[in-house]
Amino acid sequence: MAVQTVASTTDSAAANSVDLGPAAALSCRECGHRVPLGPVFACEECFGPLEIAYDFSAHDTEELRKRIEAGPANIWRYAPLLPVPADVATKPNLNPGWTKLVQADNLARELGVDAGKLFVKDDSGNPTHSFKDRVVAQAIEAARAFGFTTLSCSSTGNLAGAVGAAAARAGFRSCVFIPHDLEQGKVVMAAVYGGELVGIEGNYDDVNRFCSELIGDPAGEGWGFVNVNLRPYYAEGSKTLAYEICEQLGWRLPDQLVIPIASGSQLTKIDKGLRELIGLGLVEDRPYKIFGAQAEGCSPVSTAYKAGHDVVRPQKPDTIAKSLAIGNPADGPYVLDIARRTGGAVEDVDDGRIVEAIKLLARTEGIFAETAGGVTVGVTRKLLESGALDPSLTTVVLNTGDGLKTLDAVAGTGLTATIRPSLESFREAGLV
Amino acid sequence: MAVQTVASTTDSAAANSVDLGPAAALSCRECGHRVPLGPVFACEECFGPLEIAYDFSAHDTEELRKRIEAGPANIWRYAPLLPVPADVATKPNLNPGWTKLVQADNLARELGVDAGKLFVKDDSGNPTHSFKDRVVAQAIEAARAFGFTTLSCSSTGNLAGAVGAAAARAGFRSCVFIPHDLEQGKVVMAAVYGGELVGIEGNYDDVNRFCSELIGDPAGEGWGFVNVNLRPYYAEGSKTLAYEICEQLGWRLPDQLVIPIASGSQLTKIDKGLRELIGLGLVEDRPYKIFGAQAEGCSPVSTAYKAGHDVVRPQKPDTIAKSLAIGNPADGPYVLDIARRTGGAVEDVDDGRIVEAIKLLARTEGIFAETAGGVTVGVTRKLLESGALDPSLTTVVLNTGDGLKTLDAVAGTGLTATIRPSLESFREAGLV
Repeated sequence: MAVQTVASTTDSAAANSVDLGPAAALSCRECGHRVPLGPVFACEECFGPLEIAYDFSAHDTEELRKRIEAGPANIWRYAPLLPVPADVATKPNLNPGWTKLVQADNLARELGVDAGKLFVKDDSGNPTHSFKDRVVAQAIEAARAFGFTTLSCSSTGNLAGAVGAAAARAGFRSCVFIPHDLEQGKVVMAAVYGGELVGIEGNYDDVNRFCSELIGDPAGEGWGFVNVNLRPYYAEGSKTLAYEICEQLGWRLPDQLVIPIASGSQLTKIDKGLRELIGLGLVEDRPYKIFGAQAEGCSPVSTAYKAGHDVVRPQKPDTIAKSLAIGNPADGPYVLDIARRTGGAVEDVDDGRIVEAIKLLARTEGIFAETAGGVTVGVTRKLLESGALDPSLTTVVLNTGDGLKTLDAVAGTGLTATIRPSLESFREAGLV
Repeated sequence: MAVQTVASTTDSAAANSVDLGPAAALSCRECGHRVPLGPVFACEECFGPLEIAYDFSAHDTEELRKRIEAGPANIWRYAPLLPVPADVATKPNLNPGWTKLVQADNLARELGVDAGKLFVKDDSGNPTHSFKDRVVAQAIEAARAFGFTTLSCSSTGNLAGAVGAAAARAGFRSCVFIPHDLEQGKVVMAAVYGGELVGIEGNYDDVNRFCSELIGDPAGEGWGFVNVNLRPYYAEGSKTLAYEICEQLGWRLPDQLVIPIASGSQLTKIDKGLRELIGLGLVEDRPYKIFGAQAEGCSPVSTAYKAGHDVVRPQKPDTIAKSLAIGNPADGPYVLDIARRTGGAVEDVDDGRIVEAIKLLARTEGIFAETAGGVTVGVTRKLLESGALDPSLTTVVLNTGDGLKTLDAVAGTGLTATIRPSLESFREAGLV
């Protein structure tokens, strides 16, 4: 690991003069060691992951609630709880978030959930149509604070578009690395924003290895890799899903959440967000259960959960749910811990059930989900069948992306009939 | 034209008991003849188009403003001004609207517009990612009021998905007619919602002719064709674009609007919406100019405008902007009238400039627009160059759809470099 990925209490002192609102320091998730805010992601003591430590002491609960409710219809309504400066909403940014929490009564009926109890948090409404806009928006503000001029990432899809779009609007140069043989459609979705889009001769692992090298090299100076050296800031964006869900439920915790697992970061940050709301008194302190969802073809966390292990053994992904296909999820052990601590579970579904679930959500609620949404809805069905999910409790299922980006998954869907342009032909087809 | 497409004052009396909020009657745009509310679209006297006549007399300006501002973050905040029942927000609906009005300072800089004066109203944030969700949402409420059980339309793209999705959520059967040889991607986007999707052996004109036949036949009983027998209600959805733009500008009229023209309905209804806001006292009565935008390959209105004609001569469309490719636009004469009355203009751009404009918007503001958005941005540039648009005035440009639906238009966009996974190869590519 390159030197500047690790923070030291002394040489990062200068970086601590940055204004990132309530963010007070970086703290190691493993050993608790604190270092000043800076573009670092691994603990100098134990190489554990660093995350943001906040100072929320200034907040009065009711004042905070009012301030949030009067805020903009995007994630910046929660600026007082995020690692961003107070005036963040005035800076050019894609302003994602405040997506719909859809009361899914039709889906509830099909799945046997009580009326009014099932909700879909639909993040396909974000600017580039995935939850990645939330995390990239945080990384952009951190990049501004640290004086970076180029935004970068490795990606095979959603993240490339999110970084390209956000960088364009915010006035950063972007340089995104992808495997050189990515499908043309995905290349277009990322390339249209006009940043550098570099194909690497190799697979996704090769792309990642190259990015790690670049961070440690003078050539990477001034570069913010949103999910590497800006990762502690980036990851906090997922907390906004927790905030929005609770506020949209009328400042109430849901009883059960079904969340997809890729690296596991989103699930752990949603849990963090819920605990923060409890700590701040914005929601009543009641138990909630977190359920993790994976595709069977990439189910390292689900496999460990079922085997009762604390350690996640890497897998070689083979599933249509590409946006969740991380075979060695960094936050896997934390996910296991949260599922067990809250009384939830981790489950997986095969590709056939993923496709079925995409269609089920579309025909019941008019929401066309990415494969990752097929995973959460499919897992929800499976957990209801097994009794792990209680159909009488308030349940929120996440859809983190848009079906338009994974059309291949439902390519078999087509015309129900073909007729000549005549009433006779119409009647013959039995459509009346 | 089939009998039941025309309203008579006597036999539609029963229909007038329907509750569609402030909608008082249907009124002929040509001769002013009024008939009760019903599923009809052409005047019995002169065959002119019927539109909604409202009774807004009960509204107190400041009370109305407060009520709107306290409303939901979707089109139903304007329910008091739409042909929908007062409790519309409690019914299952996709709840489109309240999309972002993006202050486009980067784009302004490139186009030579004064800072803070250029805005993009980005309707790609709607549930199925086009403005069609707005109009279909109105049609759904009218269909409920008239007791229809099947929702239908002819379509070649955006509308098919919007109807399929909205019908699924609202609990209607849907049956959408499309040319049988539509691209597979577009078929999938419409089919995924699980309604009937019928391919007609013929072109789009054949599909339309067949739908007109079906409306006049017993086989079409109980069917609401969103853009035919529900058209007066459906069309009103476009007014919400006018309402949102003004409210998002702080209850202020923009000076200039650039709006795409397909049938011309959207442009005429935005004008209607602006005039309503003036009439209700919600905005100050000041002049505004409306500019219409077409693709050169389908520019019947622009051609008529430039020739000084009142009549629009049909054209055979040949452009990449498929969602605007209506060669015989029903509202063309009204568009000419509005452009001339307000001091605006109608202009067109060729396919090359459409593609350039899509890329320009993406690389400046991170907004990936459908080809229709390329048309409005391209026309904006052209009108600034010619001096027809004043760069010192507040200007709103509409993006009505999503680039993910017209990927082919920018298919030439791709990798900026391909390298081996090494720093040496990276340096050789000159990317530092």
